[in-house]
Amino acid sequence: MQIARVRGTVTSTQKEDSLRGVKFLVLQLLNDEGQLLPEYEVAADNVGAGVDEWVLVSRGSAARQVQGSEQRPVDAAVIAIIDTVSVDGRLMYSKREQW
Amino acid sequence: MQIARVRGTVTSTQKEDSLRGVKFLVLQLLNDEGQLLPEYEVAADNVGAGVDEWVLVSRGSAARQVQGSEQRPVDAAVIAIIDTVSVDGRLMYSKREQW
Amino acid sequence: MQIARVRGTVTSTQKEDSLRGVKFLVLQLLNDEGQLLPEYEVAADNVGAGVDEWVLVSRGSAARQVQGSEQRPVDAAVIAIIDTVSVDGRLMYSKREQW
Amino acid sequence: MQIARVRGTVTSTQKEDSLRGVKFLVLQLLNDEGQLLPEYEVAADNVGAGVDEWVLVSRGSAARQVQGSEQRPVDAAVIAIIDTVSVDGRLMYSKREQW
Amino acid sequence: MQIARVRGTVTSTQKEDSLRGVKFLVLQLLNDEGQLLPEYEVAADNVGAGVDEWVLVSRGSAARQVQGSEQRPVDAAVIAIIDTVSVDGRLMYSKREQW
Repeated sequence: MQIARVRGTVTSTQKEDSLRGVKFLVLQLLNDEGQLLPEYEVAADNVGAGVDEWVLVSRGSAARQVQGSEQRPVDAAVIAIIDTVSVDGRLMYSKREQW
Repeated sequence: MQIARVRGTVTSTQKEDSLRGVKFLVLQLLNDEGQLLPEYEVAADNVGAGVDEWVLVSRGSAARQVQGSEQRPVDAAVIAIIDTVSVDGRLMYSKREQW
Repeated sequence: MQIARVRGTVTSTQKEDSLRGVKFLVLQLLNDEGQLLPEYEVAADNVGAGVDEWVLVSRGSAARQVQGSEQRPVDAAVIAIIDTVSVDGRLMYSKREQW
Repeated sequence: MQIARVRGTVTSTQKEDSLRGVKFLVLQLLNDEGQLLPEYEVAADNVGAGVDEWVLVSRGSAARQVQGSEQRPVDAAVIAIIDTVSVDGRLMYSKREQW
Repeated sequence: MQIARVRGTVTSTQKEDSLRGVKFLVLQLLNDEGQLLPEYEVAADNVGAGVDEWVLVSRGSAARQVQGSEQRPVDAAVIAIIDTVSVDGRLMYSKREQW
């Protein structure tokens, strides 16, 4: 999984039927020091992530191991809202401190 | 998923039988500021996307989670025509304004 | 899928049993202007592509959605010989003109 | 698989239900000379890897071929703690010597 | 598939149970002119490849389409020992000449 920050949304009317009701978030990937990478991902969100939150994004067939998404043509999903990231014994990110 | 713009088509007569009737679009990938990336993808289209439209492209096994494509050897598919992309509270793209 | 040009072959005697009779082609990937990219792929060929032809290559689990290859350990396959590629309203490649 | 070093952990309260009890490790990928690469991966751990240990990380659908993870939306997993890495006849890494 | 050269081995005692008896090789990827690329892969080997041999490596779910590996958490496997590679009508590699 990669660490990413929620930056926005994508909306669509004309799409695969199975995608009705799916919320698409624009995620910016972060490196392991919390800096923005140039890479982004549009991911289905089922956990209720909000703008600026840090999340774990899972890609590939893993994105369909989510209840209700088993047969949706999605290749990326938000699977968790991150509370803390610790690297080399240092607390690199804490959701509590952000809010 | 990635955001992409429809740029053209690929045609083929000699191909896997299961690909009869499949429309192949040439998509140029965009970054999250709407700029063209060097990367492209040839994707199966089932939603009726037209030239210059912005679409969501799904890659890998997700491309076969589309009715009729379950057993086709495709690794990329257009899954939605994009209406709007909003990033950092700003409307970055709106289909309505393009047309 | 990516656009690629057939450049050669790979042969092997000592291999997984399920690969008996599979033809392996060396493909050079092309960008969407028809220029050679540094990336190559060795792909199983079931459509009878010949040297210098332009083909569509499908990667990942899609490569096993080909009759007879369902249980072969291949991660890339030629799925179509390209007739034409049109980009931005311009005919970028036509097989007829090459021969 | 890639060789990686365990550098930290990610915690989350609000997540997919199937992820309850899963331990997420922050892994830094290494090249085949043991140098840190810029790439990292957050991976599910089921083998009990500790900080600074070298591990094998498996990505994609392979990450779900672990008992109990078959239906979890994870795309990376620690599958082994490395004892030794030998390259070109030279012992490049030995866990014993590190401890 | 990619062309790679066998450079070494990885050993592990503490690992997923399903990996007992699996041999892990360190492979260095080659470009299509036979030059070493910076990219490596640790792959399961079932065909008996030896050091310095050129092999085909298959990645992703394909690595589990090998007898006995169907449920192993591996994302790369050696599927063939290469006899010859021919590119642009030239014999670029021949195993016979190497030995």
